[in-house]
Amino acid sequence: MKIILIGANGTIGAAIEARFSGRHELIRANRTAGDVRVDIADPHSIRQLYRTVGTFDALICAAGQVQYEAFEKLTIEHHAIGIRSKLMGQVALVTEGLQFVNDAGSFTLTSGLTNEDPIRQGASSALVNGALEGYVRGAAIEMPRGIRINVVSPTLIEESVPVFGPYFPGVKPVPASEVALAYVKSVEGAQTGRVLRVGWSREQ
Amino acid sequence: MKIILIGANGTIGAAIEARFSGRHELIRANRTAGDVRVDIADPHSIRQLYRTVGTFDALICAAGQVQYEAFEKLTIEHHAIGIRSKLMGQVALVTEGLQFVNDAGSFTLTSGLTNEDPIRQGASSALVNGALEGYVRGAAIEMPRGIRINVVSPTLIEESVPVFGPYFPGVKPVPASEVALAYVKSVEGAQTGRVLRVGWSREQ
Ligand SMILES: NC(=O)c1ccc[n+]([C@@H]2O[C@H](COP(=O)([O-])OP(=O)(O)OC[C@H]3O[C@@H](n4cnc5c(N)ncnc54)[C@H](OP(=O)(O)O)[C@@H]3O)[C@@H](O)[C@H]2O)c1
Ligand SMILES: NC(=O)c1ccc[n+]([C@@H]2O[C@H](COP(=O)([O-])OP(=O)(O)OC[C@H]3O[C@@H](n4cnc5c(N)ncnc54)[C@H](OP(=O)(O)O)[C@@H]3O)[C@@H](O)[C@H]2O)c1
Repeated sequence: MKIILIGANGTIGAAIEARFSGRHELIRANRTAGDVRVDIADPHSIRQLYRTVGTFDALICAAGQVQYEAFEKLTIEHHAIGIRSKLMGQVALVTEGLQFVNDAGSFTLTSGLTNEDPIRQGASSALVNGALEGYVRGAAIEMPRGIRINVVSPTLIEESVPVFGPYFPGVKPVPASEVALAYVKSVEGAQTGRVLRVGWSREQ
Repeated sequence: MKIILIGANGTIGAAIEARFSGRHELIRANRTAGDVRVDIADPHSIRQLYRTVGTFDALICAAGQVQYEAFEKLTIEHHAIGIRSKLMGQVALVTEGLQFVNDAGSFTLTSGLTNEDPIRQGASSALVNGALEGYVRGAAIEMPRGIRINVVSPTLIEESVPVFGPYFPGVKPVPASEVALAYVKSVEGAQTGRVLRVGWSREQ
């Protein structure tokens, strides 16, 4: 398969690359490095990416920014950062990629646990992750040509504990290599419209 | 209690008004009618609303637009409509209202079932409803001064069947008067960070 991997140089992206490389043709993309460059916060840049890469079988996105901020300081402008990047960046990858993805291809996006297992400073992250999960369930039932779409929702990544650990008290981290398995399931399996939670389960 | 009701003239809003009136001081708001006027899609209008009304005990929002469109025609611009109105309109009611709401006051927003029980043409609605639910769970744990926040997620309303029924095949509608009970529970009860589903239950 020809697979576009956005955020290939990141903590999760590198682990995804390790799971897929050798077995598939990987096209690695980031803002500042990779086989191609893209800024998902900019729809023009996304259109340019697809014009450069052409048709493909799977797109994986493990990139996207969101603002963490104490609730009482969180402004509409802070929310706009995550909406433009992690939320609508990933949605635009789907919208713009639909004409380039092959029959029976797939899109795999990335959310995170904060919308179901909230943390301090995480209201904007929760908004974005909830939106991505609703979108994926909604989009899946209308996808044409057997195209599938899923979202991976990882818990805290072990490799990220030095940076993000203090924001996630009591959360058991998982290694990025384990999270990367969910992307394999999404791309090589047959499920669609699913939130693939890794290392945690939803509230009842 | 002094309660601001946005969307008071709507299908759900009128049923909410019937449940609260007589027992509380209600301030009814819509874009085109009411005790006060507000367009929630415009943050300036929201700030003007709060300057006019002053302090309050509860805010209920049963208003907000979102674009229904076949998935393959759904653009980023279509998504922007729902993000600006139903999503960030309701978020801005919270953000801007925080300095006006009394201790132990509450915010009650409105989502809908599409993010968990998806329908055709509903991907943007699903995105917005998922975002609202994540946001409410995230915001609740950081609310100061005993302030609470919930979101009511109604199924299809009986009174709306003539208009929306064809979009919701096989969905059992509930009367608006029954949905209005959930707003009473949110405002007069003690729960916070909850998605109050009326007439349906979430996927497992
Ligand atoms: N790490 C965790 O514990 C964790 C847990 C749950 C969810 N997540 C989510 O998983 C995703 C990836 O997280 P991560 O920790 O692996 O991130 P990371 O280590 O910071 O890496 C992000 C990668 O994406 C690229 N990137 C960032 N912004 C981009 C943009 N606008 N357009 C294109 N590429 C962009 C970066 O390279 P350039 O800077 O060169 O663009 C980098 O390669 C995020 O959405 C995050 O919220 C992470
Ligand atoms: N009806 C259903 O079956 C159903 C099911 C699930 C969820 N919902 C959700 O429940 C909410 C209310 O639905 P509804 O059917 O009761 O709506 P509705 O009958 O169309 O009424 C909407 C009310 O809100 C006001 N309004 C609309 N846009 C506004 C804005 N930007 N700022 C301030 N006020 C505004 C309208 O008055 P003006 O035009 O004068 O502003 C009207 O009073 C919506 O978010 C909808 O998605 C509805």
